[in-house]
Amino acid sequence: MPAMNAFYAQSGGVTAVINATACGVIETARKHKAKIANVYAGRNGIIGALTEDMINTNRESARTIAALKNMPGGAFGSARYKLKGIEENRAEYERLIEVFRAHNIGYFFYNGGNDSMDTAHKVSLISKKMGFPVTCLGIPKTVDNDLPITDTCPGFGSVAKYVAVSTREAAMDVASMAKTSTKVFILEVMGRHAGWIAAAGGLAGDKPGDAPHIILFPEVPFKQRAFLKRVRECVQKYDYCVIVVSEGAAYRDGRFLAEAGTRDAFGHAQLGGVAPVVAQMVRDNLGYKYHYAIADYLQRSARHIASATDVKQAYAVGAAAVKFAVAGKSAVMPVIKRVSDKPYRWTIASAPLSRIANKEKMLPKRYITKDGFGITAAARRYLEPLISGEDYPPYVNGLPKYATLKNVSVAPKLQTKFVV
Amino acid sequence: MPAMNAFYAQSGGVTAVINATACGVIETARKHKAKIANVYAGRNGIIGALTEDMINTNRESARTIAALKNMPGGAFGSARYKLKGIEENRAEYERLIEVFRAHNIGYFFYNGGNDSMDTAHKVSLISKKMGFPVTCLGIPKTVDNDLPITDTCPGFGSVAKYVAVSTREAAMDVASMAKTSTKVFILEVMGRHAGWIAAAGGLAGDKPGDAPHIILFPEVPFKQRAFLKRVRECVQKYDYCVIVVSEGAAYRDGRFLAEAGTRDAFGHAQLGGVAPVVAQMVRDNLGYKYHYAIADYLQRSARHIASATDVKQAYAVGAAAVKFAVAGKSAVMPVIKRVSDKPYRWTIASAPLSRIANKEKMLPKRYITKDGFGITAAARRYLEPLISGEDYPPYVNGLPKYATLKNVSVAPKLQTKFVV
Repeated sequence: MPAMNAFYAQSGGVTAVINATACGVIETARKHKAKIANVYAGRNGIIGALTEDMINTNRESARTIAALKNMPGGAFGSARYKLKGIEENRAEYERLIEVFRAHNIGYFFYNGGNDSMDTAHKVSLISKKMGFPVTCLGIPKTVDNDLPITDTCPGFGSVAKYVAVSTREAAMDVASMAKTSTKVFILEVMGRHAGWIAAAGGLAGDKPGDAPHIILFPEVPFKQRAFLKRVRECVQKYDYCVIVVSEGAAYRDGRFLAEAGTRDAFGHAQLGGVAPVVAQMVRDNLGYKYHYAIADYLQRSARHIASATDVKQAYAVGAAAVKFAVAGKSAVMPVIKRVSDKPYRWTIASAPLSRIANKEKMLPKRYITKDGFGITAAARRYLEPLISGEDYPPYVNGLPKYATLKNVSVAPKLQTKFVV
Repeated sequence: MPAMNAFYAQSGGVTAVINATACGVIETARKHKAKIANVYAGRNGIIGALTEDMINTNRESARTIAALKNMPGGAFGSARYKLKGIEENRAEYERLIEVFRAHNIGYFFYNGGNDSMDTAHKVSLISKKMGFPVTCLGIPKTVDNDLPITDTCPGFGSVAKYVAVSTREAAMDVASMAKTSTKVFILEVMGRHAGWIAAAGGLAGDKPGDAPHIILFPEVPFKQRAFLKRVRECVQKYDYCVIVVSEGAAYRDGRFLAEAGTRDAFGHAQLGGVAPVVAQMVRDNLGYKYHYAIADYLQRSARHIASATDVKQAYAVGAAAVKFAVAGKSAVMPVIKRVSDKPYRWTIASAPLSRIANKEKMLPKRYITKDGFGITAAARRYLEPLISGEDYPPYVNGLPKYATLKNVSVAPKLQTKFVV
């Protein structure tokens, strides 16, 4: 079989290490020229395929591609754009195959979360039906760490490290000022439905009494009375109280503590601003002086404090996806298998997309302490290796020097336009 | 003259490098045993002197003291506690001298901002009047960078670096998702009355069009119409808009965009939450999807991304204060004198506390672009060296390993209690 081209797209929220995965895909593809001629990247993710707006990564030097390993954000643009079910929106899938066919694209690497694994799976099915079978590989990426089967999701380890480090540092600040200033500090972190990121905040403390004193997980229904009681106890005992709250913290009936009321393209409620809600609650009921931080995008773009383990894994899943593809595997996703906790050893295996698509891995109950406010030793055993190691980007003039890509377009071949 | 003891206190908001200053003080004092017997540190700052609750830093090993250089927060506790004017509150000054006399304290090192320089100055005056002259040294510390005379204030360079790095990283995230997601990203930073920290965000961009596209300074009266016009222009031109807003951003009449309504011990309005106000404004008027981050304490405790220049200067002012003191200088503060911009060369000089106390150095007009939304080349020339160089703390298990002090109390000698 003559070499075909590959299409790589980034999907959903970007991470500090998604470009390390792109690096793994492109560098590995370049070693398999007999099978993969060029890697085209979607400008703005899958939209780039639908609108025939692709980037020829062959126009980037080996040095630039290597520098992707250090670069946060999405080097080619990502998209929050979900292809609907095939029956509802056949036109989009057909268009995708039309573009793939026009550009001789035989490989599709889709780098994203649950929704994207579903899409990759569907493309694999429909491409066969349409007589242009495409080798479809999902590549895991999500700071939410909620994909099943894989030990962890690239992107998560770095957010976890950011949150653990920031919690430790801010707690030291608060502790040293508590006598006359802020008593309660609240850090709001991401994690819509799964409390993995919030749990990582728990790593900041080493021994009982260390901050954070309270973690509010989406998995644990919020009870105001128990929460306020604990805050008061902490302030009385330690003079201060540090709280890590997940944006997804919710009441028993499912209402989020803070719901902005808007929804994103995937139909998920857009959250934000739970920290001020919790702060207000503390002030109104206990009268303590508070401060809060909302890490928002800072946490998932913080390449400067990325986990070396995460960077390695992000690269490895990209490289593995290409190896699987050229070996003839399709409709699978590389997964990370944990071999041992300490020292942390892992390998890459493959899992069928059908077993991953649209499934969410929640924080297991045994990772949350009985009182619902902390993490267990088991959680710590799981999380600790994921934030291990530093992988600093190069700096120039005090700032990280991140890659600049040419992002040269592939000349369109179709006469038709497609509006997304 | 036989050796006397020294009293060192941290004051006001702590920084990522205030302990580097403590390190400079203690290590240098240990080299001058003939003049300085012990360095006592105030537990919770000046309150520790008033309540005779002091820490004997002699009980810490050389290794622990050296590790202070890497440690954020305030190692001995800081305080937001302002001594009032001598006439209003003579008792506090007299108590201070009483404690100093009881513990044979002949040197007072006060590590803080404007208010603290005022206190150090007053203590110097009153101690003479009371017949127990104390050598009083101010040591600069403030993330606000608003002390006069000195080229910069230790603590600022590291916040500046944090804000510049975070802005650059978050902007890359937003840029790569703008097609289908967030168009406007807002980062709220500290800086009550002076826009130094907000200005540092401007370093994130290298060339026209780079983020941040808009900086909102406290020095520039906020005009909603001009602001919204610029946001729209940016989104039309670049597809996204990154805004760095100072917590002190205010309307022409002085009203802050967001005033929490509470005041701290110094009588300053406690701010917070300007980002959501700006975000709401954008959504209500332009309808763009937004996200915002509030860096809050994360920015000033982020030792993990401290500026190497800042760490060096923080240490140097501590060391210089001790050298000035043993050379007989009093009522002065070590200041940083810039010798050249590029390469950045600086020396330490001394300036009288009377010229520093209660004066605020605002961002000069020539540092702000004509449109009021950006920084000039002159600002860049000033700011760039201050964030230069990285000074990473040691890591264990993926987290920075920060010093643990014994903080052993000095046995009280007075029978009297003093309530603050």
